[in-house]
Amino acid sequence: MKFLASFGALGLFILSACATSPLGIRGTGDLGVVIERASGRISIVEHSQRSLLARVTGLGDLSHASVVFSRDARFAYIFGRDGGLSKVDLVKAAVVARTLQAGNSIGGAISQSGRVIAVSNYEPGGVRLFSADTLEPLSEVATPGSKTVGVIDVPGEKFVFSTFENSQIFVIDASDPRQPVVSKFPAGKNAYDAAITPDGRYYLAGLFGEDGLTLLDLWHPERGTRTILPQYGKGQEKLPVFKMPHLEGWGMAGRLSFLPAVGRHEILVVDTDTFRLSKRIPVAGQPVFAVVSPDGRQIWVNFAIPDNHKLQVIDGETLSVVKTWDAGKGVLHMEFTPKGDAVWVSARDENRVDVYSTRDFSVLSHLPMESPSGIFFTSRAHRIGL
Amino acid sequence: MKFLASFGALGLFILSACATSPLGIRGTGDLGVVIERASGRISIVEHSQRSLLARVTGLGDLSHASVVFSRDARFAYIFGRDGGLSKVDLVKAAVVARTLQAGNSIGGAISQSGRVIAVSNYEPGGVRLFSADTLEPLSEVATPGSKTVGVIDVPGEKFVFSTFENSQIFVIDASDPRQPVVSKFPAGKNAYDAAITPDGRYYLAGLFGEDGLTLLDLWHPERGTRTILPQYGKGQEKLPVFKMPHLEGWGMAGRLSFLPAVGRHEILVVDTDTFRLSKRIPVAGQPVFAVVSPDGRQIWVNFAIPDNHKLQVIDGETLSVVKTWDAGKGVLHMEFTPKGDAVWVSARDENRVDVYSTRDFSVLSHLPMESPSGIFFTSRAHRIGL
Repeated sequence: MKFLASFGALGLFILSACATSPLGIRGTGDLGVVIERASGRISIVEHSQRSLLARVTGLGDLSHASVVFSRDARFAYIFGRDGGLSKVDLVKAAVVARTLQAGNSIGGAISQSGRVIAVSNYEPGGVRLFSADTLEPLSEVATPGSKTVGVIDVPGEKFVFSTFENSQIFVIDASDPRQPVVSKFPAGKNAYDAAITPDGRYYLAGLFGEDGLTLLDLWHPERGTRTILPQYGKGQEKLPVFKMPHLEGWGMAGRLSFLPAVGRHEILVVDTDTFRLSKRIPVAGQPVFAVVSPDGRQIWVNFAIPDNHKLQVIDGETLSVVKTWDAGKGVLHMEFTPKGDAVWVSARDENRVDVYSTRDFSVLSHLPMESPSGIFFTSRAHRIGL
Repeated sequence: MKFLASFGALGLFILSACATSPLGIRGTGDLGVVIERASGRISIVEHSQRSLLARVTGLGDLSHASVVFSRDARFAYIFGRDGGLSKVDLVKAAVVARTLQAGNSIGGAISQSGRVIAVSNYEPGGVRLFSADTLEPLSEVATPGSKTVGVIDVPGEKFVFSTFENSQIFVIDASDPRQPVVSKFPAGKNAYDAAITPDGRYYLAGLFGEDGLTLLDLWHPERGTRTILPQYGKGQEKLPVFKMPHLEGWGMAGRLSFLPAVGRHEILVVDTDTFRLSKRIPVAGQPVFAVVSPDGRQIWVNFAIPDNHKLQVIDGETLSVVKTWDAGKGVLHMEFTPKGDAVWVSARDENRVDVYSTRDFSVLSHLPMESPSGIFFTSRAHRIGL
């Protein structure tokens, strides 16, 4: 009896000591997070066998959420629409820290060292810096009267972001994250999102309030900003815009970059040597994301309503559409595996994520999910500007 | 008594159940392997705090070893000079599989899917394919009478390598790794190593037997190979070559690639739009590696004897040497952290690895190691052609 009792107590102890990792001992290089927006939860997935590993709840409003990863690819930082910043341990499938840091947030970034998290806020504006370890608030860069968008990490422990109302680009040196050093540059009207070349050199802000985009060369900030593609934009026609495209998903194939055009049924191909328009590629609707495969051979494009059930693939060499199909209702996001063998696609209104082969476009797996939106793999931990 | 005995027994059980991971539960995204060549062992390190975590012995002759990583960044595959192929579990710090697959090996690669390991052999030549899971041999592509070099993974579950004596480039489709499909292309004389552009498109073989390099466009193999930089090589002067440079370490900054010149005190800058020589940069000795930082802003160069104590840094924008210093005896290898905040340098004859800040070249850490050579971080798992 005594033995059994002690065994029982120790059994529990064993359980709690060893069950600290529901995923077991495993590598974290092939993990990912899928946002299940309706349920305020995430699914932890892995892309080697393409399976769902665990779910984590209690993350607040995830209707417009984004994710970055710790340097060791163990923790996901989740930026919720409600201003919630959550740190999730992917191996333990548990929230380890959470703070409601603002009223309305639009995204965030992690610094080059991995020590600092920056969150970009709509309400009350500004960017706040947090310890990546504890989520302790470190400092705030205020932007009175202006929403902030497109916050991105760049080399030198810096962050860059844009302000919507005040039309500026901010560069923050967060080497001392309690005393960030701020530089400001003029930008075009109403920046709505931003992108950076994969080397972290050229920051490009998309504009809603005027034509063109604002470019800042971060190797030469002293040269200031300039406008590129001045003819591009909503122009005189004032096209209706059903959903603002995302620039963060932009990618490059060789020296070409691919931008979803605001309001137009076009992908713009920009030569990053000259920052001139190289080509306009007609597509099947208002593009939202134009995501380039790791080998630069395919650009996958999804669309705003009423075309948000379509997917198109552009060939990276001929720069023409090579495939169009109905991929299910509410296609919201695409994420390539790191070496590009597959792409994961969230079909929100079908309640599933589909995994496509990039080789023959066959569907390799369906994963049931509740209203899936963003898909983020941990290999993002190792890339600049995500 | 009974209680204590049972407690003791269970205590042991607890220990063995939970101590299956000497590293504890952790992410594997910031891990790395340092080859300690004299001792036939590796050090497992992490680059967030810059520490040594564990050592693994019994890996045979590591005098010219290289490493690739599993898709989940948990396992390292180590290719030893003696033909040994070892699979090391980084989390458990243990060899989980090992095979002496040939008499003399020069390196290997892991396929896009992560399922197949290819090993390139000097003796008896050929490339052998193994299961990444078990190291079970799957097939062999023989190259009678010829050493094989420069094996690289490319998209489409393919491998590419070159033969030294037979002057060919082989492309293997390993989609069915028991029945690989082989294509052969003529190459220049005595390919000694090869490199690929980061997108996996252009395979470039360095030649020892004639001037120039052989280029194959893998998007258009039907166009065959061509010679580039025809004036480049040992030429008429027949310069002595103290150590063959490595092309595998090549990198690109924008559209420029940086090649260590064979036998010459020069780095060659090649424009990958035209594959013409853009510039020759004079350096302090015969270069061995020219490694480009993730942001393309710095190219770090080390040298063959008698200059193998020097390091030089070339500026990625001005293309000139900006720093030269004595970094210790026997500088063999450099590895950037994934987002480029630091570079790890092995100084073999100093028995240490030095970690430099890329920002101000200050030394952030010294790690004592026995005759360190190659340094490999797990973020390589996510890149094409490593």
